[in-house]
Amino acid sequence: MTPDLPDQLLTLLAALHAGDAALPGPDEKAIAAARERNGQLTKPPGALGRLEELAIWYAGWRGAGQPVLERPQVIVFAANHGVAARGVSAFPAAVTAQMVANFRAGGAAVNQLARAFGARMDVHALQLDRPTADFTTAPAMDEAAFLDALRTGWLAVDPGADLLVVGEMGIGNTTSAAALAAALFGGEVRDWVGRGTGVDDAGLALKTQVVAEGLERHRDRLGEPLEVLRCLGGRELAAMVGAILRARMERIPVILDGYICTAAAAVLEKAAPGALDHCVAGHLSAEAAHGRMLEALGKAPLLSLDLRLGEGSGAALAIGVLKGAVACHSGMATFAEAGVASG
Amino acid sequence: MTPDLPDQLLTLLAALHAGDAALPGPDEKAIAAARERNGQLTKPPGALGRLEELAIWYAGWRGAGQPVLERPQVIVFAANHGVAARGVSAFPAAVTAQMVANFRAGGAAVNQLARAFGARMDVHALQLDRPTADFTTAPAMDEAAFLDALRTGWLAVDPGADLLVVGEMGIGNTTSAAALAAALFGGEVRDWVGRGTGVDDAGLALKTQVVAEGLERHRDRLGEPLEVLRCLGGRELAAMVGAILRARMERIPVILDGYICTAAAAVLEKAAPGALDHCVAGHLSAEAAHGRMLEALGKAPLLSLDLRLGEGSGAALAIGVLKGAVACHSGMATFAEAGVASG
Repeated sequence: MTPDLPDQLLTLLAALHAGDAALPGPDEKAIAAARERNGQLTKPPGALGRLEELAIWYAGWRGAGQPVLERPQVIVFAANHGVAARGVSAFPAAVTAQMVANFRAGGAAVNQLARAFGARMDVHALQLDRPTADFTTAPAMDEAAFLDALRTGWLAVDPGADLLVVGEMGIGNTTSAAALAAALFGGEVRDWVGRGTGVDDAGLALKTQVVAEGLERHRDRLGEPLEVLRCLGGRELAAMVGAILRARMERIPVILDGYICTAAAAVLEKAAPGALDHCVAGHLSAEAAHGRMLEALGKAPLLSLDLRLGEGSGAALAIGVLKGAVACHSGMATFAEAGVASG
Repeated sequence: MTPDLPDQLLTLLAALHAGDAALPGPDEKAIAAARERNGQLTKPPGALGRLEELAIWYAGWRGAGQPVLERPQVIVFAANHGVAARGVSAFPAAVTAQMVANFRAGGAAVNQLARAFGARMDVHALQLDRPTADFTTAPAMDEAAFLDALRTGWLAVDPGADLLVVGEMGIGNTTSAAALAAALFGGEVRDWVGRGTGVDDAGLALKTQVVAEGLERHRDRLGEPLEVLRCLGGRELAAMVGAILRARMERIPVILDGYICTAAAAVLEKAAPGALDHCVAGHLSAEAAHGRMLEALGKAPLLSLDLRLGEGSGAALAIGVLKGAVACHSGMATFAEAGVASG
């Protein structure tokens, strides 16, 4: 049974399938206003480096030359993967539900980071008792399950938020992410597979084998990015895609997290080039292939601190950088206001 | 006239001059406790990357296995440089005083960042009407002026702070910092000279020439790091050194800012190897030689966002990273507390 989808999401999905999605862009007037303001602030030109371009980018999406950043939202989506039964993770599948309880109790890393940076945090567990199918034998999700996951992500976004971080939890999901990356970007499968939560060499070889089997199993469907997501992804990956799409429609800037989040987001960029223009890469994960994926997407990470936890942690940490950028841009005095000679 | 110095500072300076300073180290028990706690937190081993080592380092200096970070202090020291009269900056010397007024009014970048990360901010203007001597013709400071600046830095530190950022403002001070770096680390002068607030090629050549003249003028004194600071530094650089020393005695961890702050700090490391063990590099400045200096000091920067503003801005931005690290370490649940299987 197909779930009831919001009209806007339904229309968007049809357009993404057809390859002619017209997504809203940033506010060019706000960008121009922000750029002008940036040139008047009490600092040498360019001295705040990437903070300057970040603030201008943020201004564009928020439609204000002197924006505020006061209501960040962090959403963690959790789901279980049939492929975990193949033994691709260092942790048992039961950990997904245990970690959901930990998120809800406020005990995980992302909880501390969300609190430290003043973000609202929401947790959505997607049918943990119904793992997706093992993608080496069948599409991970049927159409109804796929649409339901997209819908959960879409509806999870607070339209009043002014920044979004999406994170994930799902034992086995680096295997799913590697499969997405290999399908979307091509190249050698082994180059997209990493150690995830910490598998050994044998585990790594197994993951590579499993991903290759998945690609082979669905080879006729991999020309279409949304089909890649449905066949090789997971509920939490689809939910992240739904949330990132919704953020685009609401002009809420997004900070991408690590390997899994970026692999999910890449589906959108492949379906509609420019679809991730409202997203910035929060950090470079220690998961080996993340850097290659970011490069393919043209995204330079804000942080590079060897995190590889997922659950939105790297992106949540980067909220601080974006807050700092916006605080400088919107709070600093201009040369004229401060009576400082401009060089 | 020699200023009255706090006894502890006087003793320390004598020991640093003599090359036998015994500085307090971190609390090894706290390090062991933090390391043990880190291994029990609900995440795969090592998944928080550098945040883990940062939290353990912080725990050691604060003497607590589960520390808090609640009272960061940002201090900006400002001073004028005789060498500015040589035309080494893109801005007129009057800007130092104008920016001090801007700091006091809350309009500079560092004000916004201190506020964003909940830091107390203090501004110390060091005799702006008395620039140091042009170091190409005389030592920048006589003994009394030098000790007075060290004392100002020492006394500026709030002993109740649990994290310190020191920043600077002083037209001409990248020239002074380049001279320090060349004197302390050797090599070609031109490799230590950068564009500062934005000089052109002719300005860069002039800066290089001025630094070379300074090194030549004081060549007999450059074997002693504190003499390097007195002869080629500036009041704000000496004040930063005083503050960093005081922080060491109070076991307050320090985040180093960019090129100028790091050059000043390097004086201490050269005078007493390990003297910067309580310091972490906040960011990699866009000022060309900063990376080389950090490498020589064995410090990996937390951020690399092309900032080159000084005034403590890069380090203040990095407060967010350290806050995130400590929040995760001290706030996360353990596997046992959360009922999560540990793999």
